[in-house]
Amino acid sequence: MAEPSLQALVEALRRLPGVGVKSASRMAFHLLQHDREGAQVLAQALQQAATRIRHCSLCHTFTEEEVCATCRNPQRDHGKLCVVETPADQAAVERTQAYNGRYFVLMGKLSPLDGIGPKDIGLEKLFSRAMDGEVQEVILATNFTAEGEATAHVIAEALKQRGLKVSRLARGVPAGSELEYVDLGTIAHALVDRRSR
Amino acid sequence: MAEPSLQALVEALRRLPGVGVKSASRMAFHLLQHDREGAQVLAQALQQAATRIRHCSLCHTFTEEEVCATCRNPQRDHGKLCVVETPADQAAVERTQAYNGRYFVLMGKLSPLDGIGPKDIGLEKLFSRAMDGEVQEVILATNFTAEGEATAHVIAEALKQRGLKVSRLARGVPAGSELEYVDLGTIAHALVDRRSR
Repeated sequence: MAEPSLQALVEALRRLPGVGVKSASRMAFHLLQHDREGAQVLAQALQQAATRIRHCSLCHTFTEEEVCATCRNPQRDHGKLCVVETPADQAAVERTQAYNGRYFVLMGKLSPLDGIGPKDIGLEKLFSRAMDGEVQEVILATNFTAEGEATAHVIAEALKQRGLKVSRLARGVPAGSELEYVDLGTIAHALVDRRSR
Repeated sequence: MAEPSLQALVEALRRLPGVGVKSASRMAFHLLQHDREGAQVLAQALQQAATRIRHCSLCHTFTEEEVCATCRNPQRDHGKLCVVETPADQAAVERTQAYNGRYFVLMGKLSPLDGIGPKDIGLEKLFSRAMDGEVQEVILATNFTAEGEATAHVIAEALKQRGLKVSRLARGVPAGSELEYVDLGTIAHALVDRRSR
């Protein structure tokens, strides 16, 4: 396929995560052959999102405003601050309807191997946000991966030094699971963190 | 994620083949957080391709011109016409460097279950193209799937009625393979189509 605009489209589609040259060609072929309107819609959506979306000045999540809707909501408990890695994680916590505090979205995680340090995920911003005087407790809801745990550890140490109450999501047996099929590390954690009742 | 431009972007990305709501969110997040330039590049590439790319008036493949470079090339054997399903298939045949004729790209295949009939893949155009007086042989290189075989059968019957020589890509044992691991249908075809030497 020697057409320059077609090659440019395949190259551009390859910038999407998880898209190689074969899938990019398939996407380009599909759009040009079966969904030209979709190509225009996607082009406009990309441009509008890239120009309109910025970071909430308080919690750092994606928003079109200076401050996002969650941070503006006066019904939210100002005393609790939940730290998550991404807006998708924030959405997952929201869907539980079990949390009514505010958020801080790191937009990443500490990952020394990839060269991502405290500055890249705005930890200073988080620390000043947590020290605004209203926040009573910081709930660490980073992922339970190696990087997410390390990130939680670094944040917890820094905030405890500043005298704040810090908690971490409970580790334990997932809802609806049978012990026989749960991995040993999870059961061990659930034993250590067992609750009296 | 309640931001309208973000939701619109995720919806637009879902129009790409093989992209569900989770991958679309991941793509949108990646572009907005790590590659805003990529979002702009992709938006422009989509618009340019959607406006510039059309179908070659001779072979029906994607091109920016009235007639594509392959059809314009005077070095190409005008007596041979290779029928393929997609530009990707055409590129695969080209990479072999074993064919110097011209092409007709169906941009699809007969698929009655999906409601795709002879008109949708421009068979009339192919028939008039094949009857231009120069074409001596039509080589059917549609895929060896059920739909591809049916498409080849329909085209072969119609062109043979018009007195043209029609051939089909050989079926047989793939290069570099061991008989022990080749499926029985392939070996059976290779036996029937065996060559004397």
